[in-house]
Amino acid sequence: MNKVITLSREFGSGGRELGRRLAEELGFAYYDKEIVGEIAKRTELSEQYVQSIVDHKPTMSFPIHIVSSFQTVNTIQLQQNNSVYLEQCNILNEMVDKSNCLIVGRCADYILRERHPFRLFVYADTESKMARCRRKDPDYQQTDKELMKWIKQLDKNRANYYEFYTGQKWGAPLNYDFCVNTSNFEIKELVPVIAAMFR
Amino acid sequence: MNKVITLSREFGSGGRELGRRLAEELGFAYYDKEIVGEIAKRTELSEQYVQSIVDHKPTMSFPIHIVSSFQTVNTIQLQQNNSVYLEQCNILNEMVDKSNCLIVGRCADYILRERHPFRLFVYADTESKMARCRRKDPDYQQTDKELMKWIKQLDKNRANYYEFYTGQKWGAPLNYDFCVNTSNFEIKELVPVIAAMFR
Repeated sequence: MNKVITLSREFGSGGRELGRRLAEELGFAYYDKEIVGEIAKRTELSEQYVQSIVDHKPTMSFPIHIVSSFQTVNTIQLQQNNSVYLEQCNILNEMVDKSNCLIVGRCADYILRERHPFRLFVYADTESKMARCRRKDPDYQQTDKELMKWIKQLDKNRANYYEFYTGQKWGAPLNYDFCVNTSNFEIKELVPVIAAMFR
Repeated sequence: MNKVITLSREFGSGGRELGRRLAEELGFAYYDKEIVGEIAKRTELSEQYVQSIVDHKPTMSFPIHIVSSFQTVNTIQLQQNNSVYLEQCNILNEMVDKSNCLIVGRCADYILRERHPFRLFVYADTESKMARCRRKDPDYQQTDKELMKWIKQLDKNRANYYEFYTGQKWGAPLNYDFCVNTSNFEIKELVPVIAAMFR
């Protein structure tokens, strides 16, 4: 059976970088944003719209391809959200069938639970998440207060999406095998540690 | 500067075994129950009484060596609790001065925070904690319900003690660097993974 790592992460914690480096170190396939592209292809919804759904901010301002005149706008939205989620489930299972892989986000820890993935949660304190965001994009014009609010909102969206589809609390330690606090470490240092789990 | 690992653990999670094996693997000094013995020696309180204080169940049924007639029983208890905690702080700092070490419990992650220890939290789901307790002592006569209640009570005591002295929430991921869920793993498997952090 192929090995699977699922990685959930707080915004600004460096979780995506950790995932990318870890997959590279282990020679695992790495799936992140490409999942959204694949869902868009299969559902015939625009990639931007699918992204807005998986970010838990469904909006009607993007083109919808199939609209029945008997359906209300809310019903359509709900159906689209659900079809995106169902397609996500199919795609994740197909990916896992193909090879060892690491999957970022997408409720993969829950969707793939019967395949017993190794479930990572990556987090950090607010200060270091803000510092990481500023390092990544020094042109950020936001004040500290604005940046903090933005980070919190993004994590709240992730938590809402996860909790809506899984009935579980996002970030609650019992839903993961390892929870890694990146506040005091370089991401590079953490890679061989997690990789040791697969050797 | 000596390297320090602090390990907090839920009862039945196998945290103590993980700590012992990890210290052995790394060649670090291992401090657990001997801290209580040392506190007892220095405070002139009985070892059993010190243990009851650090388990957050102070009781007056043990001998008290120094009683001022101007003090109420409650004041004496509080003073003893505090002197135990202060002695604990001294002992932990002395241990860290001596050599690389791993310390189980005793609010060491907080007390030694300025020495930047690597802070581990070890936890597991209720089912596997119960199974571990039964494996360890097959003569347990308790029903599942009683055992579950007992495990919860012990963890509640630890949480109360920790929160009283640190003002922090016991088990909250941000207070630790790694949180490790032992539910799906053998303790032996986890040792080289955590050890990789120190190589």
